[in-house]
Amino acid sequence: MQRMRIPIDREATVPLYKQVEVALRSGISAGTLAPGTRLPATRALAADLGVSRITVTNAYAELERDGLIEGIVGSGTVVMAASFGHVGRPTDPPPDWPSWQQRLQQDRQDDGPEDRLEGPNPPLQDDAARPEAISFTGVGDLRLLSTRDLGRTIHDVLRADGVAALGYGDLGAGHPQLRTTIARVLAAQGIATSGERVLVTSGSQQGLALACQVLLRPDDPVLVEQPSYDHALRLFVHLRCRVIGVPMDDDGMRVELVEDLVRKHRPGLIYTVPTFHNPTGTCLPARRRRDLLAVAARHDVPIVEDDFTGDLRYEGRTQPAVKALDQNGSVIHLGSFAKLLAPGLRIGYLVADGPVFGRLTAAKQALDLTTSPLLQRVVDRIVTVGRYQSHLRRTTRLYRRRRDAMSEALAREMPDCAVGLPAGGLFLWVRLPEGVSARALARAGARTGVVVTPGHRFFTDPTAGDGYIRLNFATRTENEIHDGITRLGQAMMQLVDAHDQLPG
Amino acid sequence: MQRMRIPIDREATVPLYKQVEVALRSGISAGTLAPGTRLPATRALAADLGVSRITVTNAYAELERDGLIEGIVGSGTVVMAASFGHVGRPTDPPPDWPSWQQRLQQDRQDDGPEDRLEGPNPPLQDDAARPEAISFTGVGDLRLLSTRDLGRTIHDVLRADGVAALGYGDLGAGHPQLRTTIARVLAAQGIATSGERVLVTSGSQQGLALACQVLLRPDDPVLVEQPSYDHALRLFVHLRCRVIGVPMDDDGMRVELVEDLVRKHRPGLIYTVPTFHNPTGTCLPARRRRDLLAVAARHDVPIVEDDFTGDLRYEGRTQPAVKALDQNGSVIHLGSFAKLLAPGLRIGYLVADGPVFGRLTAAKQALDLTTSPLLQRVVDRIVTVGRYQSHLRRTTRLYRRRRDAMSEALAREMPDCAVGLPAGGLFLWVRLPEGVSARALARAGARTGVVVTPGHRFFTDPTAGDGYIRLNFATRTENEIHDGITRLGQAMMQLVDAHDQLPG
Repeated sequence: MQRMRIPIDREATVPLYKQVEVALRSGISAGTLAPGTRLPATRALAADLGVSRITVTNAYAELERDGLIEGIVGSGTVVMAASFGHVGRPTDPPPDWPSWQQRLQQDRQDDGPEDRLEGPNPPLQDDAARPEAISFTGVGDLRLLSTRDLGRTIHDVLRADGVAALGYGDLGAGHPQLRTTIARVLAAQGIATSGERVLVTSGSQQGLALACQVLLRPDDPVLVEQPSYDHALRLFVHLRCRVIGVPMDDDGMRVELVEDLVRKHRPGLIYTVPTFHNPTGTCLPARRRRDLLAVAARHDVPIVEDDFTGDLRYEGRTQPAVKALDQNGSVIHLGSFAKLLAPGLRIGYLVADGPVFGRLTAAKQALDLTTSPLLQRVVDRIVTVGRYQSHLRRTTRLYRRRRDAMSEALAREMPDCAVGLPAGGLFLWVRLPEGVSARALARAGARTGVVVTPGHRFFTDPTAGDGYIRLNFATRTENEIHDGITRLGQAMMQLVDAHDQLPG
Repeated sequence: MQRMRIPIDREATVPLYKQVEVALRSGISAGTLAPGTRLPATRALAADLGVSRITVTNAYAELERDGLIEGIVGSGTVVMAASFGHVGRPTDPPPDWPSWQQRLQQDRQDDGPEDRLEGPNPPLQDDAARPEAISFTGVGDLRLLSTRDLGRTIHDVLRADGVAALGYGDLGAGHPQLRTTIARVLAAQGIATSGERVLVTSGSQQGLALACQVLLRPDDPVLVEQPSYDHALRLFVHLRCRVIGVPMDDDGMRVELVEDLVRKHRPGLIYTVPTFHNPTGTCLPARRRRDLLAVAARHDVPIVEDDFTGDLRYEGRTQPAVKALDQNGSVIHLGSFAKLLAPGLRIGYLVADGPVFGRLTAAKQALDLTTSPLLQRVVDRIVTVGRYQSHLRRTTRLYRRRRDAMSEALAREMPDCAVGLPAGGLFLWVRLPEGVSARALARAGARTGVVVTPGHRFFTDPTAGDGYIRLNFATRTENEIHDGITRLGQAMMQLVDAHDQLPG
């Protein structure tokens, strides 16, 4: 280490050497000055801090006496392992936070609505990457990715684009070529747009956050399917919006109820996952899509459409995105490459028409300037319409088999559960037998190495959803699905037995 | 193309074949169905849309008649170049936006404060990547980076970590190893922290956005140095905060004025760039740092410290970060790897103690779930304390020479300008001679291929700052600096001459 910015107070009564000593001791104790770290030469540190060399020498001597550092010939002064009783504990939490911090703590202890959304599992935790557990969470099967191909593409981008890929890039709405590529991919979704109306975002979550920033004020109501995507709910609650749930049936949102809700609550936006809904897997029929657009137009409410798996269809007729039906800029359409490439690239997009587009772009720039130009270029190089569609075809074939395997396993191993067969997407929404708690089942499953998402995470009402679990059938092989559902069924059986043995 | 989600309205009076035709025509006209695109086979598309095959055949026939598509043996039906008069213009802006969109447009036309921040140059535009122009903007010299080394590191990460690098990763505060690495780098800055109090962000801009999200409500005042970093100002204005400027002198913020301003405005936070301030280059003396902390503590106001070039020091005594002096969690400290690695990686961090840390982490997750786990791992692999410090040493040596070269060039070529010599950082803040407008000089410079940032960008008052330009001395070689300042001097001379020739 050549340079250190140790805080020195020349007016304090504590001698300067002591100040240097305490600062170093604190770093060693905290482990941030790790064993083996080379401290600056006394002369250099003295010059840096504007103190005399003897000050630094004295400080080093104190630390050396305590065995915390050692002068080693040829290596200079080196930090030793800090396993001594007389190391201070300066990293303990200070006793008194400022009042503004105490208020934040207080809010927290009041069990705000954000906390109510926390389930027993950390959200979206990357269990899929832990080989030992069978996790029915996540987005898609990352094992389908070729990390070798990805590495080669990154290499190609760096060679072709050089430092252009490493600067801030285009601080507008994203890398122009990628925006055009996305518009072409969307053309196959029936969405006639152009690159100028595509904004690249850091995942579709950021797209939703931007729409909220531009369209909502605190305390604004938002209308959402009930249940709905947990991270969307979490965002609404974080932004202090009131979440108004629209009931669902087997065809998705009950759009006929929307007009009354809109009249009553005057929502700032309607958030919907119309195609292969998360978590229920339902797909909104075309008629309801048009009705939703009409009611939104009548009452001047923007629609935010989350189309995260809209093209992962296993059978039946295609349904156009709501955006494809939008004639006058009523719909902001969100998508991402998470499921077809990888969530870890964090490249999503939104499509919007009209004045709102410029606002969304300004919000993006204000919030994080830009999404990594390197990764934008990498995604643009990977994605072509043809490659996207052939990857989609392969993925669809595989996931359909996995959906069927999980459906069969559930019928065999957990016959008392009720579950539909979604025509697309990633999820089975499983109704548990009367009296079985999803929270309890999730805990029991985790103990046998099976990770499922308990249903309450998809509701803002903490008492709702405990009769459901959400299973992602796409992330695991058919064998793993068989094995995992078998174990889950056993865990449920034990829960039921324990329940039956309760007195009364 | 295998699949298309064309919107079909079975209840409309428009025949189904016409609906298919119009949708395809619109995509071809917009260019999203690019020439050469293969359309689905009629049978496949018919099945997808749930229409009869003759419907699709009729639609294709219409388009083929107009020369927009062509059946090619062995290739199927292919889109032709769309250079025909009878292609519709369905992508023209619709005549009537919904009212909520019209209101957004209206806000815009009212020339809101956001617009006032727009200068003649797009902000942070990556001129540094355009070889033909000499740009004195940007962050650091990207040409110092080895794209080959970076490519190799990415390759290594993908090989070692595999799909773990491509999932959502740790949705908490970031990749644990990287957080520990950052804590170690900060130890050399005198900031005793640990990985648990480090939050990885998508650049330091996001760190500031998170602090604002957690600490501010709309209309809250924020106290900032005047002038201040343009993208910070833009963020405050975007969030509808009132920006209260604190006057500066050659030593930075005039902290003795802060207490009165705090009493008067009750700000939600104080944003400061104490070390090598952007744009002025000043460095706040230790005494003022302590005074600022004291006044913030007395009035219970959080401090957000932006330390973006705090360790790029060319001479003189080191100054501790304000965070290094913070005893009770009053300071949120922002940093990034933009200047030492590359802005395009978009990896920054913040350090915070106390209850606010959990709030910041929750805000991060709500806004974009996580920063690319792949890039987090890449940065962790590149950065070690030793490598960081040796890169810092090389960079410092080089940038110091460039600072001196620019200072000399200015004295020689633009002797009527007043400019200090900052002890660190990236910027010279140049006061232009009486009567010379920075906006005019920026435009004149751009015409001769020299890009500078006009001073008004760093003020919220649109009438302020036009007597200053900001020059980044770090992004260009000494020869380029000589050449660029010479051209800029000539451009200024012409402005002055033109001014002198005005009647009266």
